[in-house]
Amino acid sequence: MHLTHLECPRCGTTQDADRLQNLCPCGSPLLARYDLAAVGRAVDPPRLAGRAPDLWRYQELLPVADPAHRTSLGEGFTPLFPAPRFGARIGVPRLLVKDEGLLPTGSFKARGAAVGVSRAAELGARSVAMPTNGNAGAAWATYAARAGLRATIAMPAAAPAITRQEVRAAGAELYLVDGLIGDAGRLLAERTAGTGTFDVSTLKEPYRLEGKKTMGYEVAEQLGWRVPDVIVYPTGGGVGLIGIHKALGELRTLGWIEARQPRLVAVQATGCAPVVRAFQAGARRAEPWPDPTGSVAFGITVPAPLGDELILAALSATGGTAVAVSDPDLLADRQEFARSEGLLLCPEGAACLTAARRLRETGWIDGDEQVVVINTGAGLKYPE
Amino acid sequence: MHLTHLECPRCGTTQDADRLQNLCPCGSPLLARYDLAAVGRAVDPPRLAGRAPDLWRYQELLPVADPAHRTSLGEGFTPLFPAPRFGARIGVPRLLVKDEGLLPTGSFKARGAAVGVSRAAELGARSVAMPTNGNAGAAWATYAARAGLRATIAMPAAAPAITRQEVRAAGAELYLVDGLIGDAGRLLAERTAGTGTFDVSTLKEPYRLEGKKTMGYEVAEQLGWRVPDVIVYPTGGGVGLIGIHKALGELRTLGWIEARQPRLVAVQATGCAPVVRAFQAGARRAEPWPDPTGSVAFGITVPAPLGDELILAALSATGGTAVAVSDPDLLADRQEFARSEGLLLCPEGAACLTAARRLRETGWIDGDEQVVVINTGAGLKYPE
Repeated sequence: MHLTHLECPRCGTTQDADRLQNLCPCGSPLLARYDLAAVGRAVDPPRLAGRAPDLWRYQELLPVADPAHRTSLGEGFTPLFPAPRFGARIGVPRLLVKDEGLLPTGSFKARGAAVGVSRAAELGARSVAMPTNGNAGAAWATYAARAGLRATIAMPAAAPAITRQEVRAAGAELYLVDGLIGDAGRLLAERTAGTGTFDVSTLKEPYRLEGKKTMGYEVAEQLGWRVPDVIVYPTGGGVGLIGIHKALGELRTLGWIEARQPRLVAVQATGCAPVVRAFQAGARRAEPWPDPTGSVAFGITVPAPLGDELILAALSATGGTAVAVSDPDLLADRQEFARSEGLLLCPEGAACLTAARRLRETGWIDGDEQVVVINTGAGLKYPE
Repeated sequence: MHLTHLECPRCGTTQDADRLQNLCPCGSPLLARYDLAAVGRAVDPPRLAGRAPDLWRYQELLPVADPAHRTSLGEGFTPLFPAPRFGARIGVPRLLVKDEGLLPTGSFKARGAAVGVSRAAELGARSVAMPTNGNAGAAWATYAARAGLRATIAMPAAAPAITRQEVRAAGAELYLVDGLIGDAGRLLAERTAGTGTFDVSTLKEPYRLEGKKTMGYEVAEQLGWRVPDVIVYPTGGGVGLIGIHKALGELRTLGWIEARQPRLVAVQATGCAPVVRAFQAGARRAEPWPDPTGSVAFGITVPAPLGDELILAALSATGGTAVAVSDPDLLADRQEFARSEGLLLCPEGAACLTAARRLRETGWIDGDEQVVVINTGAGLKYPE
């Protein structure tokens, strides 16, 4: 393993990577750091090419020392397929969709859970707890069961129903709250205080991010170790966006991709868009959204993302932007996409289509640019 | 392309593979045949290893001449993961699960639809029609939309609700019938008579089978070009089982795998088990099941499978067997699997767990044998 330490992106201090860690004492999430020179000596793109098509192909860039601790259901290397017909309709003929619905538990959350659970188990955790908008809870409950860990999950009662069934089926303890994800977090803090349960809330431990970042590796590898012009990402907690940015930085350091950075776009719902508001104000931090209203894109309804600073830094560093979209618009694009390309995206993925359409209309995206939309989950999880 | 002709397994006549074909005049499904000697000169396992992880990696063994006609959403090369904890509980520690839930539209039907739609479009079809228990209709509607073909789908009103939404989202015409899949087929025959719509009912065209057979190639490749001892398959129309048998035969002819054949097991529901009854009677054909009752394993409720003869021949040729399981048993195994391995299987996949447990109890499966269970779809599609 080439993991060397944890680093605080806010205060710059380092922390021990070999024991269970949550936030930096300064309150910031911690980032995993690797000996990239050693990684570069151990592996290169041609040697990667023959490996199994899951996220563990990037093992030198992942934080699990002993392969016996890998908790895997075959997750990763999801398709990146062209959507030329829908793309042409919105003036982005080189549109690509990365279909994260094709992961165990039907969402991109499986990446973070697979790596996060593996590392937590490796470092001795026996039980984990987290609040969730549904999909993360389903994924963590599933992987925790697979690893033999106990899991405690709290989610809004309005979260997708199937995620409740997944959590219960995996034998996890489930709490439903009449509120949003922040309320779920508060309930869980009360219930698990003093129990020794490891808190795996979004960005409160450093390894979920390491799983999510593999989306960035895959996009680059699937494009022949090139990067697209734009990556459009539905942003709730923002771990995937932060992860993709971190991954592409690591690949640049390794010299596996060019210096050019794709512009990252954070997509939120109009009723809860703290990152969009902060980005437009040029702020480094986001204020909690005071009066969130629901969206069919339930997964991105996060009023106070802990990673706000890292999200905004990634947008700024890449010349990206942030866009809020409405439910009627994203549902119309979801329908138009299904009719032209067949596949039913999740609402959060559809929100990215609307954002791409809007950014093309304003000229922020050019008609010959290559644009990757991340469909973070299977449309199947949203039957209503 | 190495496809040479279509062959009738019942009467032995050959048919032209270069135009749209349904059944042989004798009433049997037709099978696609290839110039396997030419395939063997064109490709071998080491050359396959570097290809993209989807079913098109087996292009030399697929019936699409022009890659431009490939209708793809990145389907194939689904995980084959060990289930040691559940396996130990049922006395089959070398149990493996092939997770076909990780395909576009969340079921193994995507394989048949991808290849079937591609070939239908290549041969000039403009519209397709089929009766379905849900998942096949969802997959064919999706891929038809992607290829720009019109689709007409009929399904029982009791089929999984999400599949209706997928069909409608893709812009297909949908009929619901108060009955079983046979009733859906009769309705469709009336509605599409004389319209020139290509009938893509199960085994009524030869190329869905070619998509499904790739499960067999993948199992062999994922085991290092070896075969397991037993493959357990939930059998409704039986296309996948017939396809796996055909695929392994092709690989043996190519010399890519050993001569030994895995024993194939067809799993049905106790309330509709025509193949099991015929197998137990030593019959070559199955009688239509006279009084089918519903099962949560909805996809295997097929009272009169058109491929009965081919299914029974595959079981017989491999020393396999057929097992009927009850809803309470399969639901209990589904739950036990989720608690021990995390993942929520579909009811049809869970039925295979019960069959494996039963066959181990009777000694038909030995405790040191390697057993592959096919989980044909995502548990997510069955929220009820």
